[in-house]
Amino acid sequence: MIVGRVVGEVVCTRKFRTYDAAKLLQVQPLDLQKKDRGLPMTAIDLVDSGPGDEVLICLEGQSAVDAIGLGDNPVDAVILAVIDELKVADA
Amino acid sequence: MIVGRVVGEVVCTRKFRTYDAAKLLQVQPLDLQKKDRGLPMTAIDLVDSGPGDEVLICLEGQSAVDAIGLGDNPVDAVILAVIDELKVADA
Amino acid sequence: MIVGRVVGEVVCTRKFRTYDAAKLLQVQPLDLQKKDRGLPMTAIDLVDSGPGDEVLICLEGQSAVDAIGLGDNPVDAVILAVIDELKVADA
Amino acid sequence: MIVGRVVGEVVCTRKFRTYDAAKLLQVQPLDLQKKDRGLPMTAIDLVDSGPGDEVLICLEGQSAVDAIGLGDNPVDAVILAVIDELKVADA
Amino acid sequence: MIVGRVVGEVVCTRKFRTYDAAKLLQVQPLDLQKKDRGLPMTAIDLVDSGPGDEVLICLEGQSAVDAIGLGDNPVDAVILAVIDELKVADA
Repeated sequence: MIVGRVVGEVVCTRKFRTYDAAKLLQVQPLDLQKKDRGLPMTAIDLVDSGPGDEVLICLEGQSAVDAIGLGDNPVDAVILAVIDELKVADA
Repeated sequence: MIVGRVVGEVVCTRKFRTYDAAKLLQVQPLDLQKKDRGLPMTAIDLVDSGPGDEVLICLEGQSAVDAIGLGDNPVDAVILAVIDELKVADA
Repeated sequence: MIVGRVVGEVVCTRKFRTYDAAKLLQVQPLDLQKKDRGLPMTAIDLVDSGPGDEVLICLEGQSAVDAIGLGDNPVDAVILAVIDELKVADA
Repeated sequence: MIVGRVVGEVVCTRKFRTYDAAKLLQVQPLDLQKKDRGLPMTAIDLVDSGPGDEVLICLEGQSAVDAIGLGDNPVDAVILAVIDELKVADA
Repeated sequence: MIVGRVVGEVVCTRKFRTYDAAKLLQVQPLDLQKKDRGLPMTAIDLVDSGPGDEVLICLEGQSAVDAIGLGDNPVDAVILAVIDELKVADA
């Protein structure tokens, strides 16, 4: 999984059938110092997160699809936790 | 998923059996400011999109294949929504 | 999927059992202007392609394996079409 | 799989249901000389590892999920071994 | 799949249950001219290869796991052939 920050929302009217129920957030991955560290992606929110939240993103498809009860819903990224703290050990 | 813009179409005569029914579009990924942000890819269109449309691309195989009723159709990317708006929250 | 050009063939004598039947081609990914755009990869050819052909590569495993009737055959890339034309829309 | 070093822990209160039981560690991938070699990631720990341990990370979902008996648990990375030694052959 | 050279071995005592039977090799990916071309990775050896061998690596999980009869064994890379020759076509 990767750590990211929610930066926006993706709004679609014309979409694949099972996506009507999905909340799509735009997420920016972060490094250990919580700076931007790569390309933003779109994820289905499973934990009611929103802009500014630091979240845990899972880059995975089928088991996530099963988990949310949308068996034929194409998905490659879900938000599955809001992060309270990223404890970095002393080097 | 990632946000991209449809830039063209891939035309093939000699192809794997189940691809006869698939519409193959070439898509350029975009960043938050809607600039090109990496390498183009080819995706199967599920929502009747076309050149110039901003779309949501899912990088995934098996569940997408099941979703479109083509059980033995190799696929690693589908277009599953046309994007109306990408709402970026204020920093 | 990604667009690439067949640049060679991989010859192996000692290989995993189900690979005896597989034709392994080396493919160079291309950008929209058909220039090299990243690292070459090896793919199982499903459409009888050969050196110089522009092809469509699918980066996927299980459904491709099922599709070619080799259920326990590890695979992460197949060539599933020879490209006639890549129609790029005017910007 | 890739070789990495455990650098911290991810603490979450609000999370997807089946993640209550998962221990989430932050891991920095390493190169052959054991220097940092890319972006950190979050993995579910399967072998009771901790900060400073060099570990083997598997970037995979469904079989890992099955292996730990959490069938609908989205996951894309697990720690499946603590590394004693990385024997590099003489060039 | 990608072409690589075996550069070492990963030795682990504390590991996930089904990994006791797995031989873990460290592999460096190569380009068409057989120069190093990216980050090393760890793969399960299926063809009794060793340091110095040029091999074919498959970046895939579930079907590889099934293929070696270890159904709940997390894996994302296997060595499935020793390469005799990489025939590059004239440009």
